[in-house]
Amino acid sequence: MTEKNLTMLTDFYEFTMANGYFEKGIADRRAYFDMFFRRVPDGGGYAIMAGVEQLIDYFKNLHFTEEDIAYLRRRGCFSESFLNYLREFEFACDVWAVPEGTPVFPGEPLVTVAGPMIQAQFVETMVLLTINHQTLIATKASRITRAAQGRTVLEFGSRRAQGYDGAIYGARAAYIGGCQGTACVLADRDYKIPAGGTMAHSWVQMFDSEYEAFKAYADIYPDNCVFLVDTYNVLKSGVPNAIRVARDMVSEYGIRPRGIRLDSGDIAYLSIEARKMLDAAGFPDMQIMASNSLDEYLVRDLLVQGAQIDSFGIGERLITSKSEPVFGGVYKLAAVENGQGEIVPKIKVSENVEKITTPHFKQVYRLFDKATGKALGDVITIHDEVIDAALPYVLFDPIHTWKQRVVSDYTVRPLRVQLFQAGKCVYQNPAISDIRSYCLAELDTLWEEIKRFENPQTYFVDLSRRLWDCKHELLESCRI
Amino acid sequence: MTEKNLTMLTDFYEFTMANGYFEKGIADRRAYFDMFFRRVPDGGGYAIMAGVEQLIDYFKNLHFTEEDIAYLRRRGCFSESFLNYLREFEFACDVWAVPEGTPVFPGEPLVTVAGPMIQAQFVETMVLLTINHQTLIATKASRITRAAQGRTVLEFGSRRAQGYDGAIYGARAAYIGGCQGTACVLADRDYKIPAGGTMAHSWVQMFDSEYEAFKAYADIYPDNCVFLVDTYNVLKSGVPNAIRVARDMVSEYGIRPRGIRLDSGDIAYLSIEARKMLDAAGFPDMQIMASNSLDEYLVRDLLVQGAQIDSFGIGERLITSKSEPVFGGVYKLAAVENGQGEIVPKIKVSENVEKITTPHFKQVYRLFDKATGKALGDVITIHDEVIDAALPYVLFDPIHTWKQRVVSDYTVRPLRVQLFQAGKCVYQNPAISDIRSYCLAELDTLWEEIKRFENPQTYFVDLSRRLWDCKHELLESCRI
Repeated sequence: MTEKNLTMLTDFYEFTMANGYFEKGIADRRAYFDMFFRRVPDGGGYAIMAGVEQLIDYFKNLHFTEEDIAYLRRRGCFSESFLNYLREFEFACDVWAVPEGTPVFPGEPLVTVAGPMIQAQFVETMVLLTINHQTLIATKASRITRAAQGRTVLEFGSRRAQGYDGAIYGARAAYIGGCQGTACVLADRDYKIPAGGTMAHSWVQMFDSEYEAFKAYADIYPDNCVFLVDTYNVLKSGVPNAIRVARDMVSEYGIRPRGIRLDSGDIAYLSIEARKMLDAAGFPDMQIMASNSLDEYLVRDLLVQGAQIDSFGIGERLITSKSEPVFGGVYKLAAVENGQGEIVPKIKVSENVEKITTPHFKQVYRLFDKATGKALGDVITIHDEVIDAALPYVLFDPIHTWKQRVVSDYTVRPLRVQLFQAGKCVYQNPAISDIRSYCLAELDTLWEEIKRFENPQTYFVDLSRRLWDCKHELLESCRI
Repeated sequence: MTEKNLTMLTDFYEFTMANGYFEKGIADRRAYFDMFFRRVPDGGGYAIMAGVEQLIDYFKNLHFTEEDIAYLRRRGCFSESFLNYLREFEFACDVWAVPEGTPVFPGEPLVTVAGPMIQAQFVETMVLLTINHQTLIATKASRITRAAQGRTVLEFGSRRAQGYDGAIYGARAAYIGGCQGTACVLADRDYKIPAGGTMAHSWVQMFDSEYEAFKAYADIYPDNCVFLVDTYNVLKSGVPNAIRVARDMVSEYGIRPRGIRLDSGDIAYLSIEARKMLDAAGFPDMQIMASNSLDEYLVRDLLVQGAQIDSFGIGERLITSKSEPVFGGVYKLAAVENGQGEIVPKIKVSENVEKITTPHFKQVYRLFDKATGKALGDVITIHDEVIDAALPYVLFDPIHTWKQRVVSDYTVRPLRVQLFQAGKCVYQNPAISDIRSYCLAELDTLWEEIKRFENPQTYFVDLSRRLWDCKHELLESCRI
């Protein structure tokens, strides 16, 4: 596989617009773009931010090769002076983003890119593609691992992922969202996501009998034995052979196998029966792992039915977020500087009311209750507003403005960090295991009502009074 | 972005099994693995094979770097002799596959890999990942383009794809399945998928008025003007401004704009009203393009409602196959050679009956009616069976075996081609545009009843008598 220069992974209209700004002499006017989303997948109450590290890689490597320029010249619609600009291109934007692992909510600017219009516009496709994908999978992983109530959840979906990066970065995002590991070797080698695995049905079939297959595996990997017991018949063949080999192992090596894996059939029934057989044989410590098209709903139902499962391998329904495979982030113009260096807020109106944007260069704050440590809500403000935690703060609903709430005894934290300053990276990516721990800790600051699978309570995301006024003035002014 | 060596894009258990075969001295026994699927996504009647070219790239580049070997050594569970084997690894398998663009059906071996057990097993993850992804998207694209009844359909989904490769190879697969082009520039540069696009809402917002934005665009691209008309108000502002600029263009350049694009609101109503306005203004040749979360069902409904749409831009619901985002291909052991070089067929039984595999090294034939040119059905046979079209052939249903049908006056074609012979590539990939044309032509050989969106007629995929006997003997023998 040859190296892919992802600079060209963009929609064609980014080039027609870039060339257009260039030709019209407005390429260097400073513009502010926000990436945000409108609703949480699966009707959930929160999403988990992910993909920032790959977005930083993209910005750092933005450049056009001679091959790219030759391709664009062949298209016949770009000026030579524009192609020369691309040849000399250096990323010069400021970028802010919510750190990976943070619970985020609809309407919040997760990423803001500010800089020369021609650049801030151009990066749209990759900002969206990168954050949409990983945030989708991290969010799904958070739901599934919460359903497992502390049991181990491993990501097993590479073979059903949507493309190679879907597998690799999907494994990364799943880990951020709460999975303990993956089956994907490349994700371990390159991104330190712990990878593991034991045997497929084909291993069992390669030997003359299931017993010989298990026995051969135990000879080689006595420390890591998980027997796949459903190649022929789980209760009549698989589990009895696993027990027989377990006894061999105890007598030959003094080592006990880790457990068994179920990959088909009625997992609830089979796990309960297998548990009884393992216990009766003197192996209550052998664990039962389950896989087979599971997701948060099936995991929850299995546990409600008393399934005896210690760990879950989750494949296609996690790696594609099958029940809702799209994270609908958008990238919209929020402001432009005029000739005098003043920020002019911009709005996009729409006949679909939920598609109306919130204008201006913004900041986001999260307020926490001092007594409980729980998050009270988020406030989106104009960029230069400061919330003084020494004073009470009035939260109000930006749609139902009569809904107000005065909070005091709170702490406040800006939700976003700066990634780039004038094109230079000013952010150090945390270790992936720290991101995962941070995610779990931040989830603890959300009330359980926000984290319900269905019909969760809506988390407060309010606009400051100044921002609300700005938005409504713009809305009034563009009535047609 | 650094180059990714996709050799390591595999499930960890492929390595534990490979090392196991190596340690047990059976690594070089010849094994036969089939990739097949069990049901068509979205309840459809056929799938479109795609991804072969990338699978060939993968096989050609299979090798382990010192970095890979160092990683595996750190894992502490592989022998040095196995690691040395990997260092010297050379792909030595035979591979057969159905060519890209071919309509395929459940149960058919789309890919067969035969070779040293250690190798034929190892490639499982990448065979599945590659074919599952592209076949999923090509199949969805075929449904959507058929719904559009000859109108242009463009793939616009990069920003909502599941990872970078999801966007790039998704665009490729969508083109194979029938789309006329993509918005993805990289897919054009590297894979010759025609890319195009004009403007986003942000272009319109960057100017002081919508009229000025359209006018500026027309100045630069008079030959390729499609005005996005829904930034403020489609019928009161967008279409009138488009018409005003269209008149300017005619008088200034003598060129007429290509059309307008609708991206929100009630597309059926707005397109009908916009059509009337354009016609009344003397621009019946200006086309109307629609985008906004469309899929085959919405495209069909829009046309039923009389929407005046000339071309469709399809985003997230195509690039993720949103309504069913998983193509459930599996890779199963079909046979192993014994010490005497005889092929020993293997079966995987399951408590889920539909998960029982068809054993043996196989071939697939497609039979066509001479009079109509239509496909009569496919027959899966043992590898050395030949169907003589000079003789009548008895097709019978492998589940309801009393359902039989004698066909005569037919032609017969092996459905698969050989890609690799003893590790050497013996196949020349067709040009992508030829694959697309071939796909459309092959679809014409299927009766309309097979191609219905809902409740299609099931296409015949039968087993030869010899293969059916072999399968049932094995099933009987492993009763427990």
